[in-house]
Amino acid sequence: MIKVGVIGATGYTGEEIIKILAGHKNVEITVLQAVVEKEELISDIFPALKGRVELVCQKPDIAKATQGAELFFLALPHRVSMKVVPALIEAGKKVIDLSADYRLEADEYEKWYGESHKDKANIPKAVYGLPELFRNEIKKAKLLANPGCYPTGAALAITPLLKKGCIDTTSVIIDAKSGATGAGRKALLALSLSEVNENLKAYKINEHQHKPEINMVASKVAGRKIDVIFVPHLVPMNRGILSTVYAGILPGNSSAFTADGAIELYRDFYKNEPFVKVMGKGIFPAIRDVQYTNLCNIGVKVTGSKIIIVSCIDNLLKGAAGQAVQNMNIMCGFDETEGLI
Amino acid sequence: MIKVGVIGATGYTGEEIIKILAGHKNVEITVLQAVVEKEELISDIFPALKGRVELVCQKPDIAKATQGAELFFLALPHRVSMKVVPALIEAGKKVIDLSADYRLEADEYEKWYGESHKDKANIPKAVYGLPELFRNEIKKAKLLANPGCYPTGAALAITPLLKKGCIDTTSVIIDAKSGATGAGRKALLALSLSEVNENLKAYKINEHQHKPEINMVASKVAGRKIDVIFVPHLVPMNRGILSTVYAGILPGNSSAFTADGAIELYRDFYKNEPFVKVMGKGIFPAIRDVQYTNLCNIGVKVTGSKIIIVSCIDNLLKGAAGQAVQNMNIMCGFDETEGLI
Amino acid sequence: MIKVGVIGATGYTGEEIIKILAGHKNVEITVLQAVVEKEELISDIFPALKGRVELVCQKPDIAKATQGAELFFLALPHRVSMKVVPALIEAGKKVIDLSADYRLEADEYEKWYGESHKDKANIPKAVYGLPELFRNEIKKAKLLANPGCYPTGAALAITPLLKKGCIDTTSVIIDAKSGATGAGRKALLALSLSEVNENLKAYKINEHQHKPEINMVASKVAGRKIDVIFVPHLVPMNRGILSTVYAGILPGNSSAFTADGAIELYRDFYKNEPFVKVMGKGIFPAIRDVQYTNLCNIGVKVTGSKIIIVSCIDNLLKGAAGQAVQNMNIMCGFDETEGLI
Amino acid sequence: MIKVGVIGATGYTGEEIIKILAGHKNVEITVLQAVVEKEELISDIFPALKGRVELVCQKPDIAKATQGAELFFLALPHRVSMKVVPALIEAGKKVIDLSADYRLEADEYEKWYGESHKDKANIPKAVYGLPELFRNEIKKAKLLANPGCYPTGAALAITPLLKKGCIDTTSVIIDAKSGATGAGRKALLALSLSEVNENLKAYKINEHQHKPEINMVASKVAGRKIDVIFVPHLVPMNRGILSTVYAGILPGNSSAFTADGAIELYRDFYKNEPFVKVMGKGIFPAIRDVQYTNLCNIGVKVTGSKIIIVSCIDNLLKGAAGQAVQNMNIMCGFDETEGLI
Repeated sequence: MIKVGVIGATGYTGEEIIKILAGHKNVEITVLQAVVEKEELISDIFPALKGRVELVCQKPDIAKATQGAELFFLALPHRVSMKVVPALIEAGKKVIDLSADYRLEADEYEKWYGESHKDKANIPKAVYGLPELFRNEIKKAKLLANPGCYPTGAALAITPLLKKGCIDTTSVIIDAKSGATGAGRKALLALSLSEVNENLKAYKINEHQHKPEINMVASKVAGRKIDVIFVPHLVPMNRGILSTVYAGILPGNSSAFTADGAIELYRDFYKNEPFVKVMGKGIFPAIRDVQYTNLCNIGVKVTGSKIIIVSCIDNLLKGAAGQAVQNMNIMCGFDETEGLI
Repeated sequence: MIKVGVIGATGYTGEEIIKILAGHKNVEITVLQAVVEKEELISDIFPALKGRVELVCQKPDIAKATQGAELFFLALPHRVSMKVVPALIEAGKKVIDLSADYRLEADEYEKWYGESHKDKANIPKAVYGLPELFRNEIKKAKLLANPGCYPTGAALAITPLLKKGCIDTTSVIIDAKSGATGAGRKALLALSLSEVNENLKAYKINEHQHKPEINMVASKVAGRKIDVIFVPHLVPMNRGILSTVYAGILPGNSSAFTADGAIELYRDFYKNEPFVKVMGKGIFPAIRDVQYTNLCNIGVKVTGSKIIIVSCIDNLLKGAAGQAVQNMNIMCGFDETEGLI
Repeated sequence: MIKVGVIGATGYTGEEIIKILAGHKNVEITVLQAVVEKEELISDIFPALKGRVELVCQKPDIAKATQGAELFFLALPHRVSMKVVPALIEAGKKVIDLSADYRLEADEYEKWYGESHKDKANIPKAVYGLPELFRNEIKKAKLLANPGCYPTGAALAITPLLKKGCIDTTSVIIDAKSGATGAGRKALLALSLSEVNENLKAYKINEHQHKPEINMVASKVAGRKIDVIFVPHLVPMNRGILSTVYAGILPGNSSAFTADGAIELYRDFYKNEPFVKVMGKGIFPAIRDVQYTNLCNIGVKVTGSKIIIVSCIDNLLKGAAGQAVQNMNIMCGFDETEGLI
Repeated sequence: MIKVGVIGATGYTGEEIIKILAGHKNVEITVLQAVVEKEELISDIFPALKGRVELVCQKPDIAKATQGAELFFLALPHRVSMKVVPALIEAGKKVIDLSADYRLEADEYEKWYGESHKDKANIPKAVYGLPELFRNEIKKAKLLANPGCYPTGAALAITPLLKKGCIDTTSVIIDAKSGATGAGRKALLALSLSEVNENLKAYKINEHQHKPEINMVASKVAGRKIDVIFVPHLVPMNRGILSTVYAGILPGNSSAFTADGAIELYRDFYKNEPFVKVMGKGIFPAIRDVQYTNLCNIGVKVTGSKIIIVSCIDNLLKGAAGQAVQNMNIMCGFDETEGLI
């Protein structure tokens, strides 16, 4: 039983982390902090927690937090985490950071997040927490950079092909569609129901800050520099990311590449993964199948010299809070699936 | 052809007024003003207007506005209209105010809108613009107070019964359900899709600022003081208000009150109204039937000593912009239905 | 560890029951049956169950079912359950029926469900499974009639007042709003997204088949015959029922009835209930707070001589599958909250 | 003033055609037919038409129809139109067919629609009704094949590039996202709100029956055989199609291809088109901008050697009924924009 704190407890990912931890065998939640007007019971903020988590959500106070827990989830906005991490690491705490602050190299970070990094010293210590690809590093991590939601869905969709080396790496296109919670719990006109409902749009076309993160993972698994086309879309629903990924099969492979063979490749690659499911031939995942789970479901289609992969995740779970708990389970030697479905 | 201005052109009701006026035979839009970051074409703000209205939306400047048009729609927030109206009235302009600023007596206004009224002198001149009830006064109005969305749906549902004098006036309950545009175009967390979608709630239970307005109209038509129960609900959709109204039939009337008789009462009352449709026996209106129209559809059911009325409007049209144009048509002697469907 | 079967495994409530049971400590799912085209893994039908429940969903075969489990959930349509129950009861199985077939007296059933009852002999043995009101009877039940979704939300909202005897029992109005899953998993034009989305309607006004069920429970707790007004509405969302209940306070009580007193009454009545939460003064529940939980959250407001109660449940959980498992827990002597949140 | 009939008046596109024609200067609706249980006023079927169109919707009877109008819109399902068209053409009527029956060559039709064509004789007479590309042919058409919704959005997005000859024609990927009305007014479980809402899926991946239609148009404008990748997705909203189109720029062109140049190309190509709007640099269309209009809005981005085009249409208007009326206007010599916005 370890003592766990959640900093940023009142955002969508903070809420989900608390809900998962409330049913986790090996964990006791001992610290909740967030920028709140007054300190009150978290169950008064999220009534669904009534009777399950009766802890006061404190205002941010890292010194106080440090005394209360051994491991911390930081469900904070980008640019805020890096101001909190140094003190926690210094105090010997394990940290799982859900922001983007420790995912990229400092110069890439500055380029995409518009601010110079305030904690460059800790960046090299951070492990990128995509368990299906980097489980061994995660086991030893003290500071874990939890992946972004889009990169999780995209990387799990494309990695088997990159590892196999069978696609033209200049041809990768990721057309991703996300529900609105992906943008966080914010008072923005552009996120209001009246604007998003019965609407659909592409945004930050090939300029989204998750693009360098996708490129980083793709380049790492491919062993060469990859630059994908990435176009995110905002869909009128709460939760879920569906990524439709297109790639050209390299000439030498295309004749050998049948639908069955491609599915076999994916099934083999993910054969020991509890949270990645590869659909059968002609079957493709829907958001509904993964909502409220930590699953990433994948469907594969080969058509001529092109391959199309569809992946679905719940952006708040496999794309954020669920994956963060999965990472905690790995870091702490718990059953990797504990608390998760 | 009269010259018309819209002040507050970029909110949801402003947008709808412009769209209606763009197809109106008797009107030329000559002035658009709103609190905008930079002055630009309204069609750059609302791309659907491209090719139809190519006018720059200016920053607020009442002196400039006054020179450009003869009649003004004020699609402004409450508390702002009353700062603009005096100058327009002074300049001899006709004004249709969509805010709540001229609907109530000054003391009621202060009680419900939390601020003392800044233009008490003009309140008595304002005509409450519900055409089905007050058409004759509207014809002569210089300053028109366009009704609130909830009061429109509620008043049209309950008036025939109050005029007939057949219900217990202490028994009126209005359970209203509204889409999110009713709250205006605002950056509020409580209005974000992630909060409103897949959700439903009652709010301001019997304490909503439209309650005194409903009471005012009901009391006027009944000829005695009426205090209704009014409970609004926020529904995950963009447009529409469905009001379910409950009332007890007075003993002397209940035996005589059949479903057929009640429908006859309503049909007779609204027989000359182009925008009020009374459904047949056993048929009840749905929001879909009135969306994107200026209609108010009404269904009636008698059950024992109770009567249940269901009314549906599009909150942005019959509940705001459509009714405002209907009022303009009456005030200016145009065909009352011009520009409206 | 008891062996449990689910007949009607592929509807919305069947799906939810399986999901709950998959994480239930005291239960092993051993039988799944439904009207399916071909017998296949339930996880191929509901991909979210992959890796959690790998059992073939058989075509209906009660003889086969009987051999495989000790307790059965019947997630079947009305009129079908009563053809299945006799054999199960005969075989000594415990049965939790989620249809309406054993909730009403035979004559009421016939009147509201349009068919004479085929198993009148077992009706008197059935216990109505609303745990907060009838827990002692449920403990001994062999055949349990799981309440309808609307009656659950309505009965929990109104019971404390009826028990207290402080309201005019002729004045009760229940204005209920439900998401679309309440209508079941059906191919109906009226349930298609294109018809329901961006729409809202009242239906079966005071003629819904759940009205006699509400009356039955209300009459039982009040000790006198009660006939409520019940108007259901279809809201464009998947899950949840919000019931807004209106009642007149009896003269002798109204002066004594403050908001604080009313909340106290409710808190006292539900003080030992794990799944009923009474909100504080001025706070009202939203569907969001109870979605994906077995909770019924209740808010109370007193205004003059009227009292308004708002209750929220997830129609598929507290309104169906969750309550069914709660009833199983009581019937089998398990922890009442096992498997539920 | 011509007399017009609508066969298939009760589907989504039939409804929209009637609504448009109700406000059209040059047209009188004289015939409405559909498969209905009983013949009743169309305004009883669509209450929004009350007071605007008071015509009985007859059961299908082509002989009777022929006597009543000069031009017919066929808003019929695929495979039904081809049984109706011969009699209408024989009788000298103008026909605008919204089904797929006259869009493809007979063999392609058979391959994709699973049935041999029943009216091969008339296929060569049919003109494909995409006004922006084939206006001159449309002017002389007696039998018009109104384009599919997906092909309209895709073809308008890709044509300027194909005409210019600047892209690798083997590289075209169309990732399209549609609201649910695109599937028609049908009682299908897969279209129910409970299944589609809060969900998202790709379907008929590169196997959708609109793919050969896109290929046909693309090949025609390019002057060579083109085979695109086409992946449609079902989005939880009523109306709208957003197509994200990806293509590789040919080596000789890519250096010269700037964002400004690409926008210029599109603006020039569509400079005389009333219903196609090309957005400025860095601006991309949203479904909201075109909903309830006949517009197709297009945004363009160049990134390295790839070009990304986003187009938005209302699938029921520019993707069906609006375009059908636009075609009628052209065929009859009316103002092309009459009745449309």
